Amino acid sequence: MAPHSCKGCLRDIIARMSSENKGIPMEVNGIEGNGITDNPFMSVIGMPWFGMDIGGTLCKLVYFEPKDISKNKNDAEVEQTLRNIRRYLTKNSAYGSTGHRDIHLQMDNVSIRGILGTLHFIRFPTSEMKNFLVLAKYKGMAKLVSTVCATGGGAYKFEEDFKREVNMKLAKFDEFESLLKGLQYIDARSPTECYYWANPTDESKCTKVNYDFSKPYPFLLVNIGSGVSVLAVYSEKNYKRISGTSIGGGTFLGLCCLLTGCNSFEEAIELAAEGDHTHVDKLVRDIYGGDYEKFGLPGDLVASSFSALCSFGQMNSRERRSKVSRQDLARATLVTITNNIGSIARMCATQEKIENVVFIGNFLRVNPIAMKMLAYAMDYWSKGTMKALFLEHEGYFGAVGCLLQFHEDLKS
Amino acid sequence: MAPHSCKGCLRDIIARMSSENKGIPMEVNGIEGNGITDNPFMSVIGMPWFGMDIGGTLCKLVYFEPKDISKNKNDAEVEQTLRNIRRYLTKNSAYGSTGHRDIHLQMDNVSIRGILGTLHFIRFPTSEMKNFLVLAKYKGMAKLVSTVCATGGGAYKFEEDFKREVNMKLAKFDEFESLLKGLQYIDARSPTECYYWANPTDESKCTKVNYDFSKPYPFLLVNIGSGVSVLAVYSEKNYKRISGTSIGGGTFLGLCCLLTGCNSFEEAIELAAEGDHTHVDKLVRDIYGGDYEKFGLPGDLVASSFSALCSFGQMNSRERRSKVSRQDLARATLVTITNNIGSIARMCATQEKIENVVFIGNFLRVNPIAMKMLAYAMDYWSKGTMKALFLEHEGYFGAVGCLLQFHEDLKS
Repeated sequence: MAPHSCKGCLRDIIARMSSENKGIPMEVNGIEGNGITDNPFMSVIGMPWFGMDIGGTLCKLVYFEPKDISKNKNDAEVEQTLRNIRRYLTKNSAYGSTGHRDIHLQMDNVSIRGILGTLHFIRFPTSEMKNFLVLAKYKGMAKLVSTVCATGGGAYKFEEDFKREVNMKLAKFDEFESLLKGLQYIDARSPTECYYWANPTDESKCTKVNYDFSKPYPFLLVNIGSGVSVLAVYSEKNYKRISGTSIGGGTFLGLCCLLTGCNSFEEAIELAAEGDHTHVDKLVRDIYGGDYEKFGLPGDLVASSFSALCSFGQMNSRERRSKVSRQDLARATLVTITNNIGSIARMCATQEKIENVVFIGNFLRVNPIAMKMLAYAMDYWSKGTMKALFLEHEGYFGAVGCLLQFHEDLKS
Repeated sequence: MAPHSCKGCLRDIIARMSSENKGIPMEVNGIEGNGITDNPFMSVIGMPWFGMDIGGTLCKLVYFEPKDISKNKNDAEVEQTLRNIRRYLTKNSAYGSTGHRDIHLQMDNVSIRGILGTLHFIRFPTSEMKNFLVLAKYKGMAKLVSTVCATGGGAYKFEEDFKREVNMKLAKFDEFESLLKGLQYIDARSPTECYYWANPTDESKCTKVNYDFSKPYPFLLVNIGSGVSVLAVYSEKNYKRISGTSIGGGTFLGLCCLLTGCNSFEEAIELAAEGDHTHVDKLVRDIYGGDYEKFGLPGDLVASSFSALCSFGQMNSRERRSKVSRQDLARATLVTITNNIGSIARMCATQEKIENVVFIGNFLRVNPIAMKMLAYAMDYWSKGTMKALFLEHEGYFGAVGCLLQFHEDLKS
């Protein structure tokens, strides 16, 4: 297993940055407030605007960059800091080896609270939060921002750290309300946001097809982050969490790490793309010799995940295990987890009599295998009555939503 | 990982047996029929009676031993063979390292088709099926038995092997009908068959409590074998398969093999008993810092299985992985799979408006941890409205049921 390299981490960047940022005061601790409320520019615009969804594995950060940040020429220092922050956040797509800006998701000319600007989408591991706070301090953000909108479990877990380290207050918003708010906002402004997979089992014909999600209700929302939450959404304000499972994206990554020695989600997905799960799983045909017709279970359905390698009586059980590749193990992990999520989603949709099932969350990032499996499973098992839908900004709705909620609250 | 030892396997026994059984003709292949139909004793009694449930991992075999096998003194050879079979099957509890008779489950003085006898319960790995057939031939069973009642996937998969190797016909019965038939039969004859776990989270107070299951309907039946099937049972004849998952007992064993190098189900369970899953899983409190009160999710609930070891940004992620014990990994595997099954069962029970959920299958054998977890989860999440029930003959209902179905069919 390759050791984790620290080069390019936030830690590393921070060390290098200390010289670059000499002009920006770094100390905010111990200062009563941070001077923002006395600043007429900040009190109106309150820039920069950040929304964070601090999940179990990833922190999703959206940064709203106004088109014009020079409304108040009187405060040159504030303006310079804003420019520094903007330059830092927007000139890079990668922040070390752990932080990334998803440029392809960037949304230009969108308006929040009447101000036109650009939404930038950035993600970094939640485990880097303390380094992020150091970075925020060094970049001067902590001087300008008194409040950061936040949602996800980390909004609670890290609240004290934000206060102690950078004297920032977290404006906490409920995870699911933020999710739905962000989803509605982005879908309305991104014409190709929602799509489905046509012909998901035929690689040569399989294509992404745009879906008009302007009349979304009711729909089932399956949020696949570290774990999985399932919401039934009946209208903008009426929703309920109906189910969930701890077997989610974090499980995929954790098991792949342990079973294959991989070191990142991307590596796990690449391994899975090259593997064959039938070397690891027992299929219906391995048990029945063919289909189980009475209950319509096809022979190539997985009957028992991961159980092909442990038939103790077989002389070749150890041999089989040693022949199975890392790729096969990664694929079996992906198939197991995806099928389980699909199955739970289907049960929930049946129970709620809902046809459209929207899958979101960072488990689906760079993961067409899982999306196509979900698309196929929803269609096949519901006999065509249910549809799996996907959204381009898969993991960012919570971060956008809490930002919007904050500004709505300010307006009202 | 310890290599699999062949000593004591069916293979090994067969080799040793060849000398013991010289008196019994071994060749049946190529002989037209097996002479049974011409034998008046066999045509009436048709002894010995076997029922097999050939699953993806285990073959469950029930053997009905009549109290009196000497009804027909005229055929000394048949009687001697019957006595040999009986002696072999009933004097041992272990047949090599892979076959076991569950003596504690033995049922005496039960009647099938008006004949009083004893039901013996034997299990061996399905992967040993070919050796079992050789054994059956050597022991002379193949000379006496023309038809074996069978259910489970293997009844289809191995049908040809039975015909070719020992000229036996498999009378195949549906898996779920057999399961229900066997369950009703055994529960009616075994006064302490059905039980629940009282105070499942308090080890000092936790006890098995007898449950009167004489009026069972409706109930949910969750059969945890290699994979999992969920049936909603409304009456003796009215049931439907409503759900299932490929994440079952086979997955537990398969993953434990891969993650801990263990070599048997018993070893996996023993490891799990000594482990701590919180070293491996991310809990709600790891993400939220405490409970997620709004949705009533307690802090010690697993939010994301297996994901505590893969926070890539953390310097100590590799170190943490190396510190986690085999025991912890086995426990996390057990907890993950059990919770997922509990969650699916609960969803199904809610959907069907059923209160009693009966868990069966060999995943529960020597597995009080899983039973107590299921008991707790059903009670806690349903706010006391659902009850997890268990049955002593957990994995044997299918094997008994197909035997009963065969004899009912003969009667009618």
